[in-house]
Amino acid sequence: MPYFDNGVYETRRRALAEAVAAAGIGGVVLGTGAEFEYLTGSAMHSHERLTAFVAGPGGFRVVAPMTDVATLCHEAALDGVEVVGWRDGDNPYALVKSWVGDGVVELGASLTADHVFELQARVPTRALSPGVRSCFLVKDAGEVAELTRAGEAIDAVHARVPELLVPGATEIAVADQLRELIEAQHVRADFVIVGSGPNGANPHHDFSDRVLESGDPVVVDIGGTLDSGYHSDCTRTYVVRGVDGSDGADGEVDPEFLTAYEVLHRAQQAAVEAARPGMTAGELDAVARDIITQGGYGRFFTHRLGHGIGLAVHEAPFIIDGSDVVLEEGMVFSIEPGIYVPGRWGMRIEDIVQLGAAAAVPLNHQPREVAHG
Amino acid sequence: MPYFDNGVYETRRRALAEAVAAAGIGGVVLGTGAEFEYLTGSAMHSHERLTAFVAGPGGFRVVAPMTDVATLCHEAALDGVEVVGWRDGDNPYALVKSWVGDGVVELGASLTADHVFELQARVPTRALSPGVRSCFLVKDAGEVAELTRAGEAIDAVHARVPELLVPGATEIAVADQLRELIEAQHVRADFVIVGSGPNGANPHHDFSDRVLESGDPVVVDIGGTLDSGYHSDCTRTYVVRGVDGSDGADGEVDPEFLTAYEVLHRAQQAAVEAARPGMTAGELDAVARDIITQGGYGRFFTHRLGHGIGLAVHEAPFIIDGSDVVLEEGMVFSIEPGIYVPGRWGMRIEDIVQLGAAAAVPLNHQPREVAHG
Repeated sequence: MPYFDNGVYETRRRALAEAVAAAGIGGVVLGTGAEFEYLTGSAMHSHERLTAFVAGPGGFRVVAPMTDVATLCHEAALDGVEVVGWRDGDNPYALVKSWVGDGVVELGASLTADHVFELQARVPTRALSPGVRSCFLVKDAGEVAELTRAGEAIDAVHARVPELLVPGATEIAVADQLRELIEAQHVRADFVIVGSGPNGANPHHDFSDRVLESGDPVVVDIGGTLDSGYHSDCTRTYVVRGVDGSDGADGEVDPEFLTAYEVLHRAQQAAVEAARPGMTAGELDAVARDIITQGGYGRFFTHRLGHGIGLAVHEAPFIIDGSDVVLEEGMVFSIEPGIYVPGRWGMRIEDIVQLGAAAAVPLNHQPREVAHG
Repeated sequence: MPYFDNGVYETRRRALAEAVAAAGIGGVVLGTGAEFEYLTGSAMHSHERLTAFVAGPGGFRVVAPMTDVATLCHEAALDGVEVVGWRDGDNPYALVKSWVGDGVVELGASLTADHVFELQARVPTRALSPGVRSCFLVKDAGEVAELTRAGEAIDAVHARVPELLVPGATEIAVADQLRELIEAQHVRADFVIVGSGPNGANPHHDFSDRVLESGDPVVVDIGGTLDSGYHSDCTRTYVVRGVDGSDGADGEVDPEFLTAYEVLHRAQQAAVEAARPGMTAGELDAVARDIITQGGYGRFFTHRLGHGIGLAVHEAPFIIDGSDVVLEEGMVFSIEPGIYVPGRWGMRIEDIVQLGAAAAVPLNHQPREVAHG
């Protein structure tokens, strides 16, 4: 069943119809995935058989394999949406063509090439234009409530991390415990990264059989999915505590780690404080990147500053060097600078923030200071 | 780590290079997914950041986010393949353009629209042509061994189904037990369908809280993934046994169900026996469809006859009405006709078959007769 009331989905679809009209295009075709779920409440995924939401001059339609129509009508909020089933051997692309108007048809990012080529054989296409894409990027009140809840859920897991990072434990053992804690707060764990010592220098390392030692820096990046479909995603960097159980490490902590961490912490905080509607994603990326570069670690900050989050863990807007995407009030995205020194250690601080009218509001609240002896 | 020896992947890549040369095209670009795994051994999935395998005049290359390069090089078989990492802010599409030759570039089906549009802005594109696609559809000896093992694994689960279908059990309870049995034979359960009585008439129904009654027809369609990444997929239709534990139902079985089942059984067997290299997928679909139509149930056979299977559960060749795809020796696909009478019951018999030089060899062996009192 859809998570929100039917009226929520109707309001979202009306906004899309207005954006389509304003863009003066023939229509929009969206495959299954986050955009489809946003408009219908259905998290259905399809593969080689086309399932798509179509917004055209005649209103809204969903085309789906006949074999999926019963399930879709049961689980989705589709008041005012015509659902048309097709059977193997029918041509669903010709149906879509008959539903869109003259002019270019914009295709959602999740449609796969097999479907894209079939549509392109029938209508002129392009990617979603900014006005249409904006419908999906600006979060409504119900979505903000869910993302706030997701922030609380993952904060509750991070609160338990220090007690797990004991000398002698393996990354795998820590990850197993984290997975259970995430599942207790969510319906599903999406990912667990426990990068200790040199493993922290690989931003997409997940976990290994490496044994933690007191004083090791450890990057812990975790996230899960709520029953509503919204995602959490939060990173903190820790130092493994002492064998005596004290919070501080009794092994020596690499002094350069602490120096770099101070730079990273300052950069992350500055970016959160600088975020404003009207600035570009590239400008926001530069706020953190400039501080890290001035601190001497620019070449070790090897990824973008952040990404949007909602019904997908990673979605637009991407907060990336050079991007001219304009940030808007209501967008929700991560701010997660990192420093990765190969062979030694890595570090990352990540908060999800909601962009208000005047400032960004963090949805994660666990301490950002690194605890060390 | 890759499942097969490095040499297996090198042989596969050489065959692809030959097909690219024979097609006289600029190159091939494949996103992550089954084709990528077939050529590299890596089941990595990427999303908004491009990861792709490129076959061009200069040889083979993989482009991947810098953050994923270490993991990819560790888990994939990439002898003779240049791996190029890109960082957020770089343009991976320009890299791909620099690696392909003049002429059209063929794109794998799994690339998503965001990547397709960026590539199309730089090079002329089209879907994989038959000669290139054939590299992925004809299974080599190692793949046939895995698909044979997958058939044995799911056969062992079907062997247990009759004892689970007791009057008073819910579909959900049966599905839970089936999931455990599938997981015991595979590394993962992919799907479980338990469609009893009228629920069986929805081919994509999964399971519900409906309570089984003696004499109910039940469609059980199950599949899982082996450690090698290859999939099983097999359907049998059962009748719920008697409350006294006897194999036969003590409730009356709808006589029309038995009549229709005889037609379905004949149609499935005829299609398995008719399959030959050189015939088209459409011709094979017609073998089963004609028998079901002559039996009076044509309008209740609402889907294609079958689909290829390998590193994806559903892949080409699709055995579908009107298809002119020519079946080749070494292809592996399902033969799964069904009859679905709304409000009453459904039925489906599905075997995976390997197409040999002269005939199709079923990889599933559980009885196809329906047991009834």
